[in-house]
Amino acid sequence: MVTRTYLGKPVPKVDALAKVTGAAQYGADFTLPGMLYARMLLSPHAHARIKRLDVSKALALEGALAVVTGDDVPPPPPPGVPEEPSGQSLSMGDLRKLVLAKGRVMFQGHCVAAVAAVTTEVAEQAVSLIEVEYEPLPAVFDPEEAMRPGAVLLHPDLFTSGLGGKATTPSNVATHLELGRGDVAKGFAQADVVVERSFRTQRVHQGYIEPDSETAMVYPDGRIVVWATTQGTFALRDQIAPLLKVPKGNIKIIPMEVGGAFGAKSYARYSPVIILLSKKSGRPVRLTLGRDQVLRDKGAPATVSTVKVGVKRDGTITAIQAKFIFSAGAYPGSPLAGGAMAGLGPYKTPNLKVDAYDVVTNLHRIEAYRAPGAPQANFAIECTMDEVAEKLGIDPLEFRSRNLVQEGDLMPNDTPFNRVGYREVLERVKSHPAWASPLGGPNRGRGLAVGFWRGGAGGQYSCTLMVNGDGSFSLLVGTVDLSGTRTGLAQMVAEEFSVPVEAVWLDTADTGEIAYTDESSGSRVTYAMSIALQQAVQDVMGQLKERAAAKLKVSAQDIEYRERKFSAKGAPDRAVTLQELATESVRGAGSIMGHGSTTRMQPAPVFAAHVADVEMDPETGRARLLRFTSFQDVGFAVNPPMVEATMQGGASQGIGWALSEEVMFDEKGGVRNPNLLDYRIPTAMDLPMLGTEIIEVPASGGPYGVRGTGEAPIVPPLAAVANAVTHATGVRVRELPLSPERVFWAKRQAGGSQPR
Amino acid sequence: MVTRTYLGKPVPKVDALAKVTGAAQYGADFTLPGMLYARMLLSPHAHARIKRLDVSKALALEGALAVVTGDDVPPPPPPGVPEEPSGQSLSMGDLRKLVLAKGRVMFQGHCVAAVAAVTTEVAEQAVSLIEVEYEPLPAVFDPEEAMRPGAVLLHPDLFTSGLGGKATTPSNVATHLELGRGDVAKGFAQADVVVERSFRTQRVHQGYIEPDSETAMVYPDGRIVVWATTQGTFALRDQIAPLLKVPKGNIKIIPMEVGGAFGAKSYARYSPVIILLSKKSGRPVRLTLGRDQVLRDKGAPATVSTVKVGVKRDGTITAIQAKFIFSAGAYPGSPLAGGAMAGLGPYKTPNLKVDAYDVVTNLHRIEAYRAPGAPQANFAIECTMDEVAEKLGIDPLEFRSRNLVQEGDLMPNDTPFNRVGYREVLERVKSHPAWASPLGGPNRGRGLAVGFWRGGAGGQYSCTLMVNGDGSFSLLVGTVDLSGTRTGLAQMVAEEFSVPVEAVWLDTADTGEIAYTDESSGSRVTYAMSIALQQAVQDVMGQLKERAAAKLKVSAQDIEYRERKFSAKGAPDRAVTLQELATESVRGAGSIMGHGSTTRMQPAPVFAAHVADVEMDPETGRARLLRFTSFQDVGFAVNPPMVEATMQGGASQGIGWALSEEVMFDEKGGVRNPNLLDYRIPTAMDLPMLGTEIIEVPASGGPYGVRGTGEAPIVPPLAAVANAVTHATGVRVRELPLSPERVFWAKRQAGGSQPR
Repeated sequence: MVTRTYLGKPVPKVDALAKVTGAAQYGADFTLPGMLYARMLLSPHAHARIKRLDVSKALALEGALAVVTGDDVPPPPPPGVPEEPSGQSLSMGDLRKLVLAKGRVMFQGHCVAAVAAVTTEVAEQAVSLIEVEYEPLPAVFDPEEAMRPGAVLLHPDLFTSGLGGKATTPSNVATHLELGRGDVAKGFAQADVVVERSFRTQRVHQGYIEPDSETAMVYPDGRIVVWATTQGTFALRDQIAPLLKVPKGNIKIIPMEVGGAFGAKSYARYSPVIILLSKKSGRPVRLTLGRDQVLRDKGAPATVSTVKVGVKRDGTITAIQAKFIFSAGAYPGSPLAGGAMAGLGPYKTPNLKVDAYDVVTNLHRIEAYRAPGAPQANFAIECTMDEVAEKLGIDPLEFRSRNLVQEGDLMPNDTPFNRVGYREVLERVKSHPAWASPLGGPNRGRGLAVGFWRGGAGGQYSCTLMVNGDGSFSLLVGTVDLSGTRTGLAQMVAEEFSVPVEAVWLDTADTGEIAYTDESSGSRVTYAMSIALQQAVQDVMGQLKERAAAKLKVSAQDIEYRERKFSAKGAPDRAVTLQELATESVRGAGSIMGHGSTTRMQPAPVFAAHVADVEMDPETGRARLLRFTSFQDVGFAVNPPMVEATMQGGASQGIGWALSEEVMFDEKGGVRNPNLLDYRIPTAMDLPMLGTEIIEVPASGGPYGVRGTGEAPIVPPLAAVANAVTHATGVRVRELPLSPERVFWAKRQAGGSQPR
Repeated sequence: MVTRTYLGKPVPKVDALAKVTGAAQYGADFTLPGMLYARMLLSPHAHARIKRLDVSKALALEGALAVVTGDDVPPPPPPGVPEEPSGQSLSMGDLRKLVLAKGRVMFQGHCVAAVAAVTTEVAEQAVSLIEVEYEPLPAVFDPEEAMRPGAVLLHPDLFTSGLGGKATTPSNVATHLELGRGDVAKGFAQADVVVERSFRTQRVHQGYIEPDSETAMVYPDGRIVVWATTQGTFALRDQIAPLLKVPKGNIKIIPMEVGGAFGAKSYARYSPVIILLSKKSGRPVRLTLGRDQVLRDKGAPATVSTVKVGVKRDGTITAIQAKFIFSAGAYPGSPLAGGAMAGLGPYKTPNLKVDAYDVVTNLHRIEAYRAPGAPQANFAIECTMDEVAEKLGIDPLEFRSRNLVQEGDLMPNDTPFNRVGYREVLERVKSHPAWASPLGGPNRGRGLAVGFWRGGAGGQYSCTLMVNGDGSFSLLVGTVDLSGTRTGLAQMVAEEFSVPVEAVWLDTADTGEIAYTDESSGSRVTYAMSIALQQAVQDVMGQLKERAAAKLKVSAQDIEYRERKFSAKGAPDRAVTLQELATESVRGAGSIMGHGSTTRMQPAPVFAAHVADVEMDPETGRARLLRFTSFQDVGFAVNPPMVEATMQGGASQGIGWALSEEVMFDEKGGVRNPNLLDYRIPTAMDLPMLGTEIIEVPASGGPYGVRGTGEAPIVPPLAAVANAVTHATGVRVRELPLSPERVFWAKRQAGGSQPR
């Protein structure tokens, strides 16, 4: 049993005070002398040819110092030369078309031109002086419609790619992903019961509170600096460089604090525009979006899903077939694999077939949202599984327990699971009052859903650890902090060197100060950085032990470290303190720095189960959440309250998706609710205290057994809530959100079936 | 013979374009939202008791958000607890008294209070509302007067320290430094000729063009960030921390570009004041000095020197005795050792005695200025040596050649010289037209002086080197660039890895991003960093070779690197490129970072000789410089034009000191000429093209034989010019500057001796 002082303890967030007092610097807090303000002219059409674009009046306006259009974006590479990979779901070629429209606008809100001016007011006036003549084109918004033969074709050069090889005629289906094993037809034939159901989800928004905000400066020698609210400094740099045809080293990305991102702040959505404006004006340029523009961009894809499950009477699954259609907006990049993997991961089945489609429509382009693709796919799977269990008369928890995956079983992509804590999660649910206690009133229902995130694999992360002369440590990391990772990493250094957390000074590096580091995403930061940091710790510890050994005249292998003291093994009185070595390190003995970097990591899969209790208003169809409990295997909780907050945050986002969140489009592809009153994120008033149950089954990889906690919590809530509503009403609503209106009409249609 | 591509070549400064276009960010270019402006109330008295200090009216002014006085500075440690060393010539205890006066003002310009307000105008108005009642005290300005018994005593707790032990009664002499060897009395007795002369120099100013400018923010959690124009980020931090009783790690110093420093921007002169103002106001606070305040602070000490030299007829020196009195201003810290070492270093003598005195007076406190103490001491020595040579009828160059020090000879502090290029310097002078050609006209004279700087020893410097995915390199250094060191370091990386200089991206780290690094001073940066960087290069190269070895299935010792290719020894076709390894390093193989740090370094002494030709206006006594040539052993010129510029810069500063620069004090200790019209720095109109002759005798330490070039160029010009003026006029003026007025009256007093 390891006794720990800082790890696994409720250490307060190291940046809490700076954040709550407004001292932390977010994107829009940054200014430079002479800075200009950018504003964009957005397309009012979902699909149109730009016949004429005249910016001369805007440019003539006093105080408007630069205007850029699609003509200012460097052209794509010549035919035959491949585009550089963007590292993102949006390809470099599509990013080029997305940032500034050229010739054609593909969705309402597509940027046609941008202005940099001395004030926002002048910039807005200049935007209003830009003259555009459009020739409207037919548009398509529904993904199923877009898939039909003869549909309006968005991109004449888009051919369906996928496991089945290249297509020969252009299509709105960018990718058809096929996964599977065995023979589903055979599996269904072996089944006693087969259930097939279809589901729909709508576009939802990541709902980050901090609007996108970046400042760019292009210096006279061509060097570019961007002060960005971003999940990944190197990711951003590595998109901007090929897009603008600038060497990567010529670009420095300085990370600002991030006020929520959830996957949507990893790509170079706006930086290229302000860089081009800065280059033209010779001035720093900042763009800060208004809330309306935030909600008119990005979001997670709407989906249309069909799930077919075959089971034996005893509950054994014989086959699963699923079809997921993701609506990407105007440029492809839906999270097909993430959806398929996370949706189907929890179930062991010999026969599996998944077809997932990435479809383009004339809507603004989606972006990654926490556990991309997983909540939508999971919603379809977990609702169907509940129906299957009900048909079999098996308790939903018991049904899942009978089909659960364990170490050695296959993921949907046929790679085997390493150590997982899924069984432990279900066991905890079974014995927990959230599942075991009575509902305690009429019109109430209880729903269960399980969820999964693969976690951790892929990506590269770097850090530098330094010993200061006063015996404190400086830790420089390449990862931006989205969720409290600073605190967790400081705890690790504190633990390893037996120093207080306050003696660990953590800085987030810009792209010139640390080696390549991938973005903060995919529940990877704490897991990956625990590996990188362990290397750095060992590097520093090794150097310290060598110096101690030289002073104590023993070999470094014979040095033990305990409580800030290096001593010779078996002779604790022959010792030198950390403080002595630290002082000497800055007084001639030479500084001590170590570095660490992850190499190929193994996955650290995360399983979760959520239980929701709802009470329905029988007249209006409104669901009120009474109780909600998240159970999750987090491997090792570095900082339990922060893990709980992450679980609660994911749950509340999933609950919003289930009950109230929806980007509403009008018939012309425009957003009808681009404000936080009409785009309804749950508030504290809408939610009970969200319960959390931490299960700790150490991951196979990494020094502490940490698993990433970020994604899994948003996966099960959609189905957990939907299953609870069905439990309460006896009616199955297969389209989200479960608004009072939808539930009301579904009950009416079902012919007055009574609440149970 | 090593063939080099980038080292030793005239590579353009990597930051030239940013600097000349105004894109580089200096101290005053930095702003933060809500930033306040600081202004100071300065003492009008050279010495006075503060009887009453009332800031209430200032605080009541709208827009004046904070006022600080000496009461806001934390008190010194309790009796018996020593002050932490400041690492600077100004002690921590004196720094505490200097930044904000408490109870007593010690010089005109001593800061009594400071205000932070929303605009500079409001700040100035608030300052004018502060009420102070002073009780003037007697003051002393002349250092010789201050040394006399019964003189006004500045500090009742100041006792003379020095090699002779502690004194028992307080004194204005802070330190009496004694150096020497042999027996000078015996030496003078052996001499055929003894010459003894006295000299005076006045306070001069470092003359940096960028006024002192810093911004500080104290965050609610107590963390402090200072954006500073400073020579040393860690040096600044390590003074602020004990002064304000804050942990070092709680302070981050972010370096801004430095527009000239020359030794005067290493200490925490103003940061504590704005930090205290920020703490009180909760806002960021910036202080930018006006030129008048710049010229009323710091500067190099005035001196009174006596030199006595004994020689044989053949020119052999038998004894040297010197006495140097340095006038430090109100708080001690004169560069006694630097002056004694640099002044007497070039001469071999068996009998040596130096007495140097650090004396306080009621003037503003001096600060380090390029080769601190050396020009003043050298002026006295080199003028005396010319008089000795003249008395002996030996050519001045020949006289110095007969007494020169070589490897193995002793420095004044009795440590032996390692490899030096002094003889090579004198040989180059001898054959050069600057020395050998005729003067070519009447009223002209030629002067020679030699100079020396110990160079390089001491200090600790750190860097991190990273390989980027595109095969470029990022270099993070702890040293701020004063003189082009960025370019030199980039050249080193380019050379070692055969990549263009443009592929080396250099960043200056703040105190959280790199291990401890001493300030940029003492001609150390390029020399010291060449050692640290070499370690980092070897670290990175070793990691790359190991990866190449693994791919080529040979051992790492059998890998050769040439032209961006790693190949197996003897099998050049079995190779892997730098680009391949770089790409893999960011795609899963793990990032490559290396670090380096200097440990105790050996000195890299620098010798210089300067030759000046002047033409005198026989009526006015004005000296016009016709020709000026600097000869210097630089070890290895990493970037010859930059070395030349450094030599020219030092020469022009020394020429200013010789001919025109002087901070003029009135009888009350106030500065009479605090502007650049009356404080007369030479302009391009005053100077001929300054000639440079680079001699390269590699230093014993370091990978390239580099010697620091910064200090030596300012050492000989004072005497070179003075010797030229004497040569032209036949009159010896032993007080600087050699203004027309001084030369005119000296000639008049000498009774009409004719120009030669």
